[in-house]
Amino acid sequence: MDIPKTPASFDAAKLRELLDGRWAGVREQVRQLLESTELPPGDDLDVESHRERVLEQLKVLAGSGVTEYGFPVAAGGKGDTGGSVVSMEMLAGNLSLMVKAGVQWGLFGGAVVALGTERHHDRYLKPIMSMELPGCFAMTETGHGSDVQNLRTTATYDAETQEFVVHTPHEAARKEYIGNAARDGRMAVVFAQLHTAGEGYGVHALMVPIRDEEGAPLPGVHISDCGHKAGLNGVDNGRITFEQVRVPREALLNRYGDVEPDGTYSSPIEGGNKRFFTMLGTLIRGRISVAGTAGSATKLALEIALRYGDARRQFEKPGTGDETAVLDYLGHQRKLLPALAKTFALHFAQEELVSTLHDLHESEQRDDRAQRELESRAAGIKAMSTWHATRTIQAAREACGGAGYLSENQLPRIKADTDVFTTFEGDNTVLLQLVAKGLLTNYKDQFDDIGTLGMARYVADQFVGTVIEHTAARSLVQRLVDAAPGRDDEDVLFDRGWQLRMFEDREKHVLDAVARRLRRASGGDSDPFEVFNNAQDHVLRAARVHVDRVVLEAFVAGIERCTDPDVAAMLERLCDLYVLSNIEEDRGWFLEHERITARRSKAVTEAVNDLCRTLRPHAVGLAQAFGTPRQWVTAPIATGAEAARQDRQRAHDAAQR
Amino acid sequence: MDIPKTPASFDAAKLRELLDGRWAGVREQVRQLLESTELPPGDDLDVESHRERVLEQLKVLAGSGVTEYGFPVAAGGKGDTGGSVVSMEMLAGNLSLMVKAGVQWGLFGGAVVALGTERHHDRYLKPIMSMELPGCFAMTETGHGSDVQNLRTTATYDAETQEFVVHTPHEAARKEYIGNAARDGRMAVVFAQLHTAGEGYGVHALMVPIRDEEGAPLPGVHISDCGHKAGLNGVDNGRITFEQVRVPREALLNRYGDVEPDGTYSSPIEGGNKRFFTMLGTLIRGRISVAGTAGSATKLALEIALRYGDARRQFEKPGTGDETAVLDYLGHQRKLLPALAKTFALHFAQEELVSTLHDLHESEQRDDRAQRELESRAAGIKAMSTWHATRTIQAAREACGGAGYLSENQLPRIKADTDVFTTFEGDNTVLLQLVAKGLLTNYKDQFDDIGTLGMARYVADQFVGTVIEHTAARSLVQRLVDAAPGRDDEDVLFDRGWQLRMFEDREKHVLDAVARRLRRASGGDSDPFEVFNNAQDHVLRAARVHVDRVVLEAFVAGIERCTDPDVAAMLERLCDLYVLSNIEEDRGWFLEHERITARRSKAVTEAVNDLCRTLRPHAVGLAQAFGTPRQWVTAPIATGAEAARQDRQRAHDAAQR
Repeated sequence: MDIPKTPASFDAAKLRELLDGRWAGVREQVRQLLESTELPPGDDLDVESHRERVLEQLKVLAGSGVTEYGFPVAAGGKGDTGGSVVSMEMLAGNLSLMVKAGVQWGLFGGAVVALGTERHHDRYLKPIMSMELPGCFAMTETGHGSDVQNLRTTATYDAETQEFVVHTPHEAARKEYIGNAARDGRMAVVFAQLHTAGEGYGVHALMVPIRDEEGAPLPGVHISDCGHKAGLNGVDNGRITFEQVRVPREALLNRYGDVEPDGTYSSPIEGGNKRFFTMLGTLIRGRISVAGTAGSATKLALEIALRYGDARRQFEKPGTGDETAVLDYLGHQRKLLPALAKTFALHFAQEELVSTLHDLHESEQRDDRAQRELESRAAGIKAMSTWHATRTIQAAREACGGAGYLSENQLPRIKADTDVFTTFEGDNTVLLQLVAKGLLTNYKDQFDDIGTLGMARYVADQFVGTVIEHTAARSLVQRLVDAAPGRDDEDVLFDRGWQLRMFEDREKHVLDAVARRLRRASGGDSDPFEVFNNAQDHVLRAARVHVDRVVLEAFVAGIERCTDPDVAAMLERLCDLYVLSNIEEDRGWFLEHERITARRSKAVTEAVNDLCRTLRPHAVGLAQAFGTPRQWVTAPIATGAEAARQDRQRAHDAAQR
Repeated sequence: MDIPKTPASFDAAKLRELLDGRWAGVREQVRQLLESTELPPGDDLDVESHRERVLEQLKVLAGSGVTEYGFPVAAGGKGDTGGSVVSMEMLAGNLSLMVKAGVQWGLFGGAVVALGTERHHDRYLKPIMSMELPGCFAMTETGHGSDVQNLRTTATYDAETQEFVVHTPHEAARKEYIGNAARDGRMAVVFAQLHTAGEGYGVHALMVPIRDEEGAPLPGVHISDCGHKAGLNGVDNGRITFEQVRVPREALLNRYGDVEPDGTYSSPIEGGNKRFFTMLGTLIRGRISVAGTAGSATKLALEIALRYGDARRQFEKPGTGDETAVLDYLGHQRKLLPALAKTFALHFAQEELVSTLHDLHESEQRDDRAQRELESRAAGIKAMSTWHATRTIQAAREACGGAGYLSENQLPRIKADTDVFTTFEGDNTVLLQLVAKGLLTNYKDQFDDIGTLGMARYVADQFVGTVIEHTAARSLVQRLVDAAPGRDDEDVLFDRGWQLRMFEDREKHVLDAVARRLRRASGGDSDPFEVFNNAQDHVLRAARVHVDRVVLEAFVAGIERCTDPDVAAMLERLCDLYVLSNIEEDRGWFLEHERITARRSKAVTEAVNDLCRTLRPHAVGLAQAFGTPRQWVTAPIATGAEAARQDRQRAHDAAQR
């Protein structure tokens, strides 16, 4: 089977335009800022100087306008949620800066915007935007990272003084890994179990001052330093313990729950679980930002490795007197090109995710189901993007050999800085469980009240079979699927309809099988934990194949938006490579379930090899089309040093002959 | 299908004894040294202080006796090659120290021992052992890392002065990533193309002084610093350029090639290729050491992650008021336990490899084929061990969440320090090609003369079909294979004979298929590069499945040596998990080639889950049985802090109820 025709070249500017997408203006603004403003990473500095530099850089950003997107117009912001995510992900060359900016404006500022009301907005947003008020997002505790609903810090209302008493009852309730805490934060949004009038109302957030104007911790606030980390050492993570710290009643971010002066609790949302998940849901932007930044870091690492692989030569090609560029080896292509294809796929999925977030945020109508779907999508894309980043950056490092181990070539820093992405803003495994839960319960409200472990029971009672709902380019996808050749046809591998159908079919089958399994196991007096736990690998798999399908549909929709035939053809081949390398990796399942024959399975492997060879001449250009700001590409091996050296060596050799 | 009976507990000391194996005495000696001598890693220091500390630690080691194993008795050493490898791998908690020690005594000292003759031994070995003479192993060049045969530094004999002129003709020939070069080395073993009397004789090694007593570079020697690296920053890697540097004729390490005063070249080995590969072959110990150290680092990372997973609790178990230890989750077990099983498998394979190295080294008889096999085995085990380390340490980091990102918990350092293992002492991909080449050419001498690319032609002419030769416990393995149930039997998964047969059969099939493919493609005027390159993924796969089989046989042989039934039963389950998780990961191939049915394939997944559950209660004990020196386990999360905190939290909760 031959690969469909691929153009000899393509217009890189047109591809860039398509990739820049809906927030092209924001991307350009950040690129321009970075052309005139140096924001170098400080990993060559000691920790203290590194933190100092990043703080200064934050102030530079604050003055540049690129940090205003996420704030309401009323507060002097731009009220552009999508822009706020996209602008941050452009900072991938200095991830300490990106993460600290994310803490200040995304998490801390974002929580005040989302959970606070006018009194908080009026008072705090301007100083937050300007960096006059550096702050923390104090959610995670030493004892509870993933299980936020059970965190232990308490905020107990004292009607007599009209104050909340914020307290850390024991070590497990200490706030942990809190960005901005060890050095710079003056205030923190503290998540705590709210108690008033003898009743508990679940997790709420309060504005708690933690340092005075001179930077000294306030009475009752004990702060320690998390110390050196694998990466991101420009961010001052710390631990905070509160010892009966009193804040006024108005410190409660009271959009979703308030306490009257006399201690009466009120909330616009009935039910503690629903309230908790609604509050958490408003904070989804941080997770989406991490996914975007993981993508940007992956693009940067791939660009470095591909440019090196294109220039680096090793082992003489017999009879030519010349050596082979390492990217000409199939083994090398296989390390990098399927990863490049998946990076394109995730780019389009991320764009769609940001768009959905933005539109839902702009919408006047509250749509609980759509919100739930968004949260599930964000969880799934964040997990897949960050795992993809970890794996791809590792492969890029190895593909550059010893050169990839030198700090000057950036890959060590990119690897170390991004490594925590798979476990922060939600541990990936926990996030995939969230995705599966949403799918199995059809995003029903009830799932809030049953927890992960009760899911088995819920599924046993309620699950009625998976219905695949297309997420992007609905009608196009349906048309392609409907027109797909039958499974016994010979020439299906490059047929997009067949590919889509394979992903859909896999998702449906896996989900239905999990549901059947949970239902079967839930009978009698089976222990719900055991039922769930025995199927955990199956549950996680259901989430993965779901996300794979969503990502593919986003890729298809992205190609559909492309008006240039050559660019579209390049993207079509990348999409083929994304799909076929995914099927190849998972061919155990497809064979087990008789979705492909042994013969076709082998043909898939051959097609992946063919696609690698076909895309190889375009690889560097494709990686560069993402438009990573030039300031971030400093590795000598990726900026011509290796190519120039090879040229000199070949000239020398030629002179000898 | 039920898992065979597994004991409720086992005698950890007996397992330790078995694992300690043939060099138990050496392991104990290092453990005892580390009980009384603090050798803390210096990653909290700046680069200069870190290098200083490691140098001081090297001097401490030099005085301790543990570094003498690799040197001849005549020079005051212990003449124990196996002991030299094992002693170094015990330093896994301070990898800068291990690597710098490896450079000094393994590579630099080892090259003088292996390639030099009496005149070099008498003069240099004592000061090398005592660290009076710190030195470098200057092989890799900027332009040639993997393709050592084509390195460009020249050593041209000048009969008039009876000197060699060592020269770097251009930048690509600069010595690169050389350990001990940037700061401490006084002398270097320099690999260069030897020219005399107008002829070239290929790569040879010479002793070249690079610094004077005060540490200043000697005239004509230009040294620069490779700068900061991802890890191993206690090792001073540098670049060396030689500008017509003259050394006396006697500087040539002349065991395999010598130059008379008049410039006449002589060598005990006919043929430049054979000489080159013979010289390289004597340096195989460094590669084996890296494999061993990768294993030790993996064990340390797993011990940390397993102890944390055993103590850390998250999400309430409904109805119990208690939370679940994260290692009780199937998903968590799957991240760590198959990796633990493979770590055991590789441990036994490494022990066997070291034994073979040792015995071959001790042997009076030269056995070219055995040497070739050893080199192939070393290449394969090094590649698989270091990839396993990279993957497992990454998984361990993620399994510890945010805590795994903090430097105090060691995993960041273990990850960063070991990351280069996959590409130094031979790039893993290049090494696997070497393995495949040996298999396809049956370790024939000729392969030296054909290079990787000529392999296709060679195979077309010569390959006569794979014969599996058992490497360990030959008769036992054969007996098990012969007694294996037929493939249609139901109860095969836990049958060791069936498992062995599956691995053998896969290896034979893949190798035969690669050979057929290369033969088919080599006809006519096909470009040998294209022929080879189109099959590269297939060639690499052949090497992998070969190593998988060799590792399994070593595991089986290791269990056979076990005299304690409970310990043996634990190892049997670990071996099952190693095999079945390997088959599960590769089930695409087994299904494609109809080696297993879809039904059996699903049963394999279920068996892996069952084995994880069965081994879970023993996981911490199994990881500790490797006997990692206690000095290396410092992570608070692995030394009781997390367990103590959980206890306090539960006591607090109980008091509240």
